[in-house]
Amino acid sequence: MRRATPELLERTRLMVEPALIETVGRLPASLALPIRYHFGWIDSAGVPFPNPRHGKGIRPTLALLSAEAVGTEAEVALPGALAVEIVHNFSLVHDDIIDNDPERRHRATVWKAFGAGDAIIAGDAMMLLGLELLLERPTPPRVVAAADLAEATASMIAGQHMDMSFDRSEAVDVDLCWEMVSLKTGALLAHAAAVGAILAGASEGTVGGLRSFGLELGRGFQAIDDLLGIWGDPSVTGKPAGNDLRERKKSIPVAVALASGSRAGERLADLYARERLDDDGIEAAAALVEEAGGRDATVSAARDCMRRAADALRGADIDPQVAEELVDLAAFVVERDF
Amino acid sequence: MRRATPELLERTRLMVEPALIETVGRLPASLALPIRYHFGWIDSAGVPFPNPRHGKGIRPTLALLSAEAVGTEAEVALPGALAVEIVHNFSLVHDDIIDNDPERRHRATVWKAFGAGDAIIAGDAMMLLGLELLLERPTPPRVVAAADLAEATASMIAGQHMDMSFDRSEAVDVDLCWEMVSLKTGALLAHAAAVGAILAGASEGTVGGLRSFGLELGRGFQAIDDLLGIWGDPSVTGKPAGNDLRERKKSIPVAVALASGSRAGERLADLYARERLDDDGIEAAAALVEEAGGRDATVSAARDCMRRAADALRGADIDPQVAEELVDLAAFVVERDF
Repeated sequence: MRRATPELLERTRLMVEPALIETVGRLPASLALPIRYHFGWIDSAGVPFPNPRHGKGIRPTLALLSAEAVGTEAEVALPGALAVEIVHNFSLVHDDIIDNDPERRHRATVWKAFGAGDAIIAGDAMMLLGLELLLERPTPPRVVAAADLAEATASMIAGQHMDMSFDRSEAVDVDLCWEMVSLKTGALLAHAAAVGAILAGASEGTVGGLRSFGLELGRGFQAIDDLLGIWGDPSVTGKPAGNDLRERKKSIPVAVALASGSRAGERLADLYARERLDDDGIEAAAALVEEAGGRDATVSAARDCMRRAADALRGADIDPQVAEELVDLAAFVVERDF
Repeated sequence: MRRATPELLERTRLMVEPALIETVGRLPASLALPIRYHFGWIDSAGVPFPNPRHGKGIRPTLALLSAEAVGTEAEVALPGALAVEIVHNFSLVHDDIIDNDPERRHRATVWKAFGAGDAIIAGDAMMLLGLELLLERPTPPRVVAAADLAEATASMIAGQHMDMSFDRSEAVDVDLCWEMVSLKTGALLAHAAAVGAILAGASEGTVGGLRSFGLELGRGFQAIDDLLGIWGDPSVTGKPAGNDLRERKKSIPVAVALASGSRAGERLADLYARERLDDDGIEAAAALVEEAGGRDATVSAARDCMRRAADALRGADIDPQVAEELVDLAAFVVERDF
């Protein structure tokens, strides 16, 4: 029986969350506080939330499914699922400082609630915690998984740095923008989609197919995230409307529009040259990105990514039911709130 | 022939520096820039320094010696020496942001020269680079070394967080202060002093002896660092005079003075309760720490640490000549500029 995506996400929550709470609980209490806040388990004063709001748990769900894809129980992937979720959240905590974002998931970001110093050190502790989970009982597959996670994390960091350098440049080559996305978002999702199979001891070919699936999913996911950064509903995204335009980010739709050679693209470049965009400016910029074809091109690119993701699974020697579930999950990710 | 400490530090520089340059060179150029600046190889515009100023290389020297201590060539320890030096420098880059320190080694700190965002991400990349060095060709001893490094780094982070929490509290228990020092400074030096033996496949008992040596050395080192933070010569330390007092840090001499129950200790507490100390206030605070016995107690505690460090080596099954060299190195560290 092919399982529906919401059911799989709920299973992840039930499997991963208690272990996540236990893992974060290993840290000294005062260091764990901002991390527990970030995960939505408590408020900034330490009072538990009855119904914590989380991320959707896409990465740990991929990790669990990738073990099942090679015929192993999901439990085998659990340390990998935990590690990738923690490392992903490390990147959110640090990125929010770097990007100066005051809100995430409808709440103050960690640096806003606890100060930049605590947010830096909480992120550092999270990154290490993820790697330690795989290294503490270092069986050969866990060591491979740890090395793979370290490499993926390094790629993610290089991608984030590339993204920051885009903020300082006037225009950005669209290909370079996609390269940044592959590093910043693709690498960790590629790891997530492969780590269960790695822990299950699957062949390199099979791991490679799952990895390609995750990479393409990551690229599609980021394309959609870039669209949400311009046209997303703040009540859904938890971020102010048009936030990426306010920050004058060179996201994919913007890069496409700036490179379009169209009149709308030129006017967008003029707007982006200003010191700061007010709400009218943001609205005008969004309309220009759309007029210059940035929105359509990004939607279509996201769909292409999803197609390539599905193709990668077809080429891999994996359970066909799980392959369908992975494709459903990919569609769920890409179609969120659109 | 027992080798002199300066000779051993110079050997480390010759062995480790080219490999360090090569390792940092694996990162994308723009991400490597602030790291190369931090290591003193270039200025902030990217122009090479003819005579770069570095740290003394205590940690990689310990790593190389700990391989020789168990009868193996120093080369065996090289990945461990590199990794610990890079991870140590990650902590400096992040700590300088957290502590708001504008200068290190007579130059602007990374965050001051490149901005906090670049400094955060450069530090993240450095932490990972250190772990990747040990995980990229994961022989069993390298995996043990990587797990040990991850654990030591986690301790260091917990210690730094504890230190930050001290800044927010009025007084600090002296024992708690030493616990913080064991974590913040001791754990990574303990790893440094053991990693060469780990990579050489030495027994747990021998590794444990070297680890204890490194831990005590770290505690002594931090005690001296705390003294330099109050009475150190700025032209030697590269930091403003009395910097720790200006920041009202609860360093060991200050914790001892505050807990002394003396009149001088009470007056110090009054001074520390002020919003900000000017130069006269710093001078007065330093005199009060000394009067309350904080200086003498810290010097004597540092000497006790060194004694225990030497004892730990006597109990371990290691080469007696290298043991003497390790003790010389410890004395060099503790007696620097005093």
